[in-house]
Amino acid sequence: MSTPHPRIAARMAGIAPFHVMDILARARQLEAQGHAIIHLEIGEPDFPTPRPIIEAGMAALNQGDLHYTPALGLPQLRSAIADFYAQHYGVQLSAQRVIVTPGASGALLLALGVLANPGDTVLLADPGYPCNRHFARFIEARTLAVPVGADTGYQLTPELVERYWAPGIKVVLLASPSNPTGTVVPDADVRAIAGICAARGATLIVDEIYHGLIYEGSYHTALAHSNQVFVVNSFSKYFQMTGWRLGWLAAPEWAIEALDRLVQNLYLAASTPAQYAALAAFMPATLAILETRKAELKVRRDYLASALRELGFDLPVLPQGAFYLYAGCGRFSQDSFAFAAQILEQTGVAITPGVDFGTHQAQRFVRFAYTTSLPDLQEAVRRLREYLQP
Amino acid sequence: MSTPHPRIAARMAGIAPFHVMDILARARQLEAQGHAIIHLEIGEPDFPTPRPIIEAGMAALNQGDLHYTPALGLPQLRSAIADFYAQHYGVQLSAQRVIVTPGASGALLLALGVLANPGDTVLLADPGYPCNRHFARFIEARTLAVPVGADTGYQLTPELVERYWAPGIKVVLLASPSNPTGTVVPDADVRAIAGICAARGATLIVDEIYHGLIYEGSYHTALAHSNQVFVVNSFSKYFQMTGWRLGWLAAPEWAIEALDRLVQNLYLAASTPAQYAALAAFMPATLAILETRKAELKVRRDYLASALRELGFDLPVLPQGAFYLYAGCGRFSQDSFAFAAQILEQTGVAITPGVDFGTHQAQRFVRFAYTTSLPDLQEAVRRLREYLQP
Repeated sequence: MSTPHPRIAARMAGIAPFHVMDILARARQLEAQGHAIIHLEIGEPDFPTPRPIIEAGMAALNQGDLHYTPALGLPQLRSAIADFYAQHYGVQLSAQRVIVTPGASGALLLALGVLANPGDTVLLADPGYPCNRHFARFIEARTLAVPVGADTGYQLTPELVERYWAPGIKVVLLASPSNPTGTVVPDADVRAIAGICAARGATLIVDEIYHGLIYEGSYHTALAHSNQVFVVNSFSKYFQMTGWRLGWLAAPEWAIEALDRLVQNLYLAASTPAQYAALAAFMPATLAILETRKAELKVRRDYLASALRELGFDLPVLPQGAFYLYAGCGRFSQDSFAFAAQILEQTGVAITPGVDFGTHQAQRFVRFAYTTSLPDLQEAVRRLREYLQP
Repeated sequence: MSTPHPRIAARMAGIAPFHVMDILARARQLEAQGHAIIHLEIGEPDFPTPRPIIEAGMAALNQGDLHYTPALGLPQLRSAIADFYAQHYGVQLSAQRVIVTPGASGALLLALGVLANPGDTVLLADPGYPCNRHFARFIEARTLAVPVGADTGYQLTPELVERYWAPGIKVVLLASPSNPTGTVVPDADVRAIAGICAARGATLIVDEIYHGLIYEGSYHTALAHSNQVFVVNSFSKYFQMTGWRLGWLAAPEWAIEALDRLVQNLYLAASTPAQYAALAAFMPATLAILETRKAELKVRRDYLASALRELGFDLPVLPQGAFYLYAGCGRFSQDSFAFAAQILEQTGVAITPGVDFGTHQAQRFVRFAYTTSLPDLQEAVRRLREYLQP
């Protein structure tokens, strides 16, 4: 980055671009030159939005009333989300505690906005979703990034939270499954970390936007462990509504009034067409489509994990969820950005360098997203094999 | 408001709810009891989204690809917006300087986010759109609210900006036409205020979300006066796409890279269906519908302004635009919130108390929105006349 214009606010120096954008820009150049690029850098499902959701959206448009919904969301959608917790997790959640948001991004900004003062600290894992530290920076809060590795499934543990505890920590943020690692925080750990937060006057936020995409094992929502946690979820990933920009936040009762005020002021309400469309997301016909696609994602994960290991990538933990493999590339390079750039030039396979997810060992990791078809994954592996094991 | 929960961040004490929500809640109670309420408190057009926009939205849904757009927006929509400036205002604007946002709210948060440091001051008019001071509070900036009255058309003037100038002012915010007053800043004043900002190292943001709804006179966009201003606009008001949540920001070249980073992190991209639908917003068939509706709004304004004056409300300035009349109610009450509550109880007419727009003489003003049909306005006036001039 060049020297910023003098009128740009200081916070912007702490808000980094996604490095993968450089990879993506170069990939597009190569595509324009006629090269066949395989995109394993993309953090959204390749599947189209399920047809029942699209049809519900079209019906909503066709009837023509597309005025603002209430700030906290359509009452019937808030109820449908609460019902989903009852049916899917056996958790009783009042619809009054559910807020429909413009994507999980909106939910994270709201949650941090009502919880963190300037100078307060948000404890989170490194590697992790880069926007989390930028949301904190945006509102002048700090982050304390705990280096995590394969030994803890790339997740915070109660022991790590205790060890890194410091004055000023007001929020602990977990993501389960995590982006970029796809790993899940065990129920017992979520419960214990919620307990640590409660004992120390801090609040736990759990990002569960990939929770619908867990391929084995049975995991509870954090809402089953505590009624004091903030849980962020989204219609983007499991429900495959990325471009619609719709998510939700489940929050403790004491925060709802403040969240309502913040919503009224920051964005008025989430998208009306998206909210009507999302009413179809929980229908059996939709869930049947989504479960079929989830099975397809598991097949891709199993194939790609095994193939990457065979190629020499380091994958000590098979992630339970999401659609990412965070793979050590230390055998090939000590500079994962250069490695990703080189892989793109030499093989036409686009991947994301570790530096987008933090600093801890970031130079030795890259993220593969299996958001493309199995034949494309196979072709990517063939090209990588040819380049890495000539 | 009761004492906030101890974990709620301090900024929330500075982010007020809309007082009209209390009026609205009571109006709904009365409606549930069978009373016929006339809503003159609602800040969105009563017209449905024009059919060509709806049909473009339906076609976008039907083709099924609803993935994220680029962070700054669909290239063809950015170009369409730039073309609109050329055709409508004769202003040449590079599409690279146009950012598609989740509503004007998203645009205001982005603009202040890249411009204002904690403690910096944003200069704005009182009365004004309440969210503006809350956006500033959200990012720990201050606001300096300049009391404005009928003598300056309820707007800042170059003289007022000079007189109130203080160290730490980094942003001056104009809204033209203004919510709640509907008044427009004359071109010469916009140009002069842009000049003052430039000379003092501050940046001018002009909210033009009601600019398409100016009923007489010819006014330029602020972009015609300076390439250093930030201009916020929206598909909500003139284009009548409120619930779709889509707006835009035109910014100087030096700010685009920082804005891009902020968009990537704060919300990824604006709604994909809304962006495809908005491509139809500039079509001649759509504009023809919108101009007819605009003529209808002018008829309402003329009727209501004259009727309110006759009833004894104080309307020294006939507003040129938007769909609001900011009327002095000093002849009836020195407590506009109590007055609005009383009017609702006694006549079933819901209006917005001045306190939602600032503190300057707020107790002596109420806002009437003419976002309902002429017959409804006539019935509201009949009821008010019966109550106020029995």
